[in-house]
Amino acid sequence: MMNKCSPYKFPSIAERLPPPPPFLLLARKELPSFSPFISLISDPKHHNHHQKKTKEKKKMDGPIFVIEASEAESMAKQSGLTVLQLLPALVKSAQALARPPISDYHVGAVGLGSSGRIFLGGNLEFPGLPLHHSVHAEQFLITNLTLNAEPSLKYVAVSAAPCGHCRQFLQEIRHAPDVQILITGDSTDNQSYKNDLANKQQFEPLSCLLPHRFGPDDLLDKDIPLLLETRHNNLSFVGDALLPNGICASFDDLKNEALEAANKSHAPFTNCPSGVALMDCEGKVYRGSYMESAAYNPSIGPVQAALVAFVMGGREGYDRIVAAVLVEKQGAKARQEQTARLLLKEISPKCELKVFHCGSSSSFNGCNNQNSC
Amino acid sequence: MMNKCSPYKFPSIAERLPPPPPFLLLARKELPSFSPFISLISDPKHHNHHQKKTKEKKKMDGPIFVIEASEAESMAKQSGLTVLQLLPALVKSAQALARPPISDYHVGAVGLGSSGRIFLGGNLEFPGLPLHHSVHAEQFLITNLTLNAEPSLKYVAVSAAPCGHCRQFLQEIRHAPDVQILITGDSTDNQSYKNDLANKQQFEPLSCLLPHRFGPDDLLDKDIPLLLETRHNNLSFVGDALLPNGICASFDDLKNEALEAANKSHAPFTNCPSGVALMDCEGKVYRGSYMESAAYNPSIGPVQAALVAFVMGGREGYDRIVAAVLVEKQGAKARQEQTARLLLKEISPKCELKVFHCGSSSSFNGCNNQNSC
Repeated sequence: MMNKCSPYKFPSIAERLPPPPPFLLLARKELPSFSPFISLISDPKHHNHHQKKTKEKKKMDGPIFVIEASEAESMAKQSGLTVLQLLPALVKSAQALARPPISDYHVGAVGLGSSGRIFLGGNLEFPGLPLHHSVHAEQFLITNLTLNAEPSLKYVAVSAAPCGHCRQFLQEIRHAPDVQILITGDSTDNQSYKNDLANKQQFEPLSCLLPHRFGPDDLLDKDIPLLLETRHNNLSFVGDALLPNGICASFDDLKNEALEAANKSHAPFTNCPSGVALMDCEGKVYRGSYMESAAYNPSIGPVQAALVAFVMGGREGYDRIVAAVLVEKQGAKARQEQTARLLLKEISPKCELKVFHCGSSSSFNGCNNQNSC
Repeated sequence: MMNKCSPYKFPSIAERLPPPPPFLLLARKELPSFSPFISLISDPKHHNHHQKKTKEKKKMDGPIFVIEASEAESMAKQSGLTVLQLLPALVKSAQALARPPISDYHVGAVGLGSSGRIFLGGNLEFPGLPLHHSVHAEQFLITNLTLNAEPSLKYVAVSAAPCGHCRQFLQEIRHAPDVQILITGDSTDNQSYKNDLANKQQFEPLSCLLPHRFGPDDLLDKDIPLLLETRHNNLSFVGDALLPNGICASFDDLKNEALEAANKSHAPFTNCPSGVALMDCEGKVYRGSYMESAAYNPSIGPVQAALVAFVMGGREGYDRIVAAVLVEKQGAKARQEQTARLLLKEISPKCELKVFHCGSSSSFNGCNNQNSC
């Protein structure tokens, strides 16, 4: 099964790196102070050995979706910018990471976390399915933060006005109203970028973009962890799911990865956490945790979250995914199984999906059956 | 097949009418001027023959989701209120129409159209499925307007702050930023309602609730019809779908109803319109048109739209739905078939779904196959 797809042809380094934003292409000629920044993205030769190694590792893994705090500071210093000013400069790179085959409308979002790391996200669309399967750039960004255990999001620069759906999803973060947003638009000329730099006030708090918000405060006790906050749902396998499935060791590994993802799932509104682990034809695993919205519909499914991890791994076609495990509660009010199956069947026709049930350690909720496909 | 479910027991009149809002229950004692309003909802004896007939017809059809302009004016006059002031007074009735078995969080929305008619909507949730299948009260309201060919929405009173998802969906209406919104909250005491009445300024334009909007203006030419505007997508059956299916005449009727719904579908962003017709065990038909959002995810699926019609028909359990037809383009980028099947299987296990393909009259888009289930 691990050899179901043809050998993967690694793209060239140039293909794997996000293209420099048009602004930086302009800057290459017109703003010499930006050259170091460009070279950090595209050429490790100006950097020390550690940076070289980090860079090379990233090139092996695919395009860059996370910039470490030290790298971000170095980029900023060498470019004569603040770290905050890097965010809009990276939006075009984030747009290039998007995969929107239905709309061809590339949205890029760049976020700065409290750790000082910079995160990139782009929108994902899945042809042949209803549009609610789509992942917006801001949702990709948040998923990126969760996958990297970033505790808090402070600033976001995004290429288009965030839609209401995204403004709502962002409410799941503690102190969401204080997250600062900058809409860069599609202006790519150097002069507009210089104006943006001169005008830091274009960042505005999310509270201004979604006043009179409906959010977790309306439904949850204050002490319940919100999105990005540490949690463990105390889920464990029940019934037959406790046993090795006897098919292959890989599925047992995937089961545990999916359980771990379910344990990190943010599902305080339905108490129906779930997690997915995907495996590609090289045996690499991608985890995704279901993330719920107080407003229900903007929730991100566990497969979508795992697909974000897959895209961040630099893998090209979803048809490279050959195995998947979903872990959720049996008889969950918000049940992912059939929709997960539908999505994977459409985009990863070679993928075999298995579903295992779990229960909370404190109460097993009557879950005691394995449901395989 | 039309006799698959047991004979329908009509609920009593009291069961079929939305309960009077708590405010009106208070008003019965404390605000005599409201009595005529109450009696219009619950007792036709104070009204003329025409009103009686209308009322009786509505009682036969189930709970009230639309109040005719003349009725609204009469209610307002007899209550010493303006028509606008009736909207918040009806929010509790709208909440009572909601069907949220997952959250038990009842949201009610009441809208005033440019025709002077008042429309009610409540939220719908579907256990056993991911939360993106949910229909929000504001989306129910808009679907209600489309089903009743209302050309424009002017004012909305809603029980909770509209979530970002709904604020986004509302953008599909022309002049959406000017729609006036009032959030009533859950205050039910008479004094707060009197304060609300005295303070008309609580209505605020949608532009204040979703500033810097992303909407159809960002993607469409100005002359393309928006939601609520008249359209005909010029779709007709292609290939085998042109033939009678030979199963039963009912499916041929449903086919035509579903095609009509697809022709009214709002899908300017993907050009993948679709429509559904549902039939209950009494042979009554409910149509629903797919309605797309510029932001993709807040779109309403064609089954959801038809379920709004079913709920508005006063029918109780979705398991009373025994037959369904979906019409969409073959190979559509945004394809509804599998998700429609999944949703109906979960909530209407007796329902047989058939799918027929259509093409635009001007170009058949290669659609020439019938795909039955």
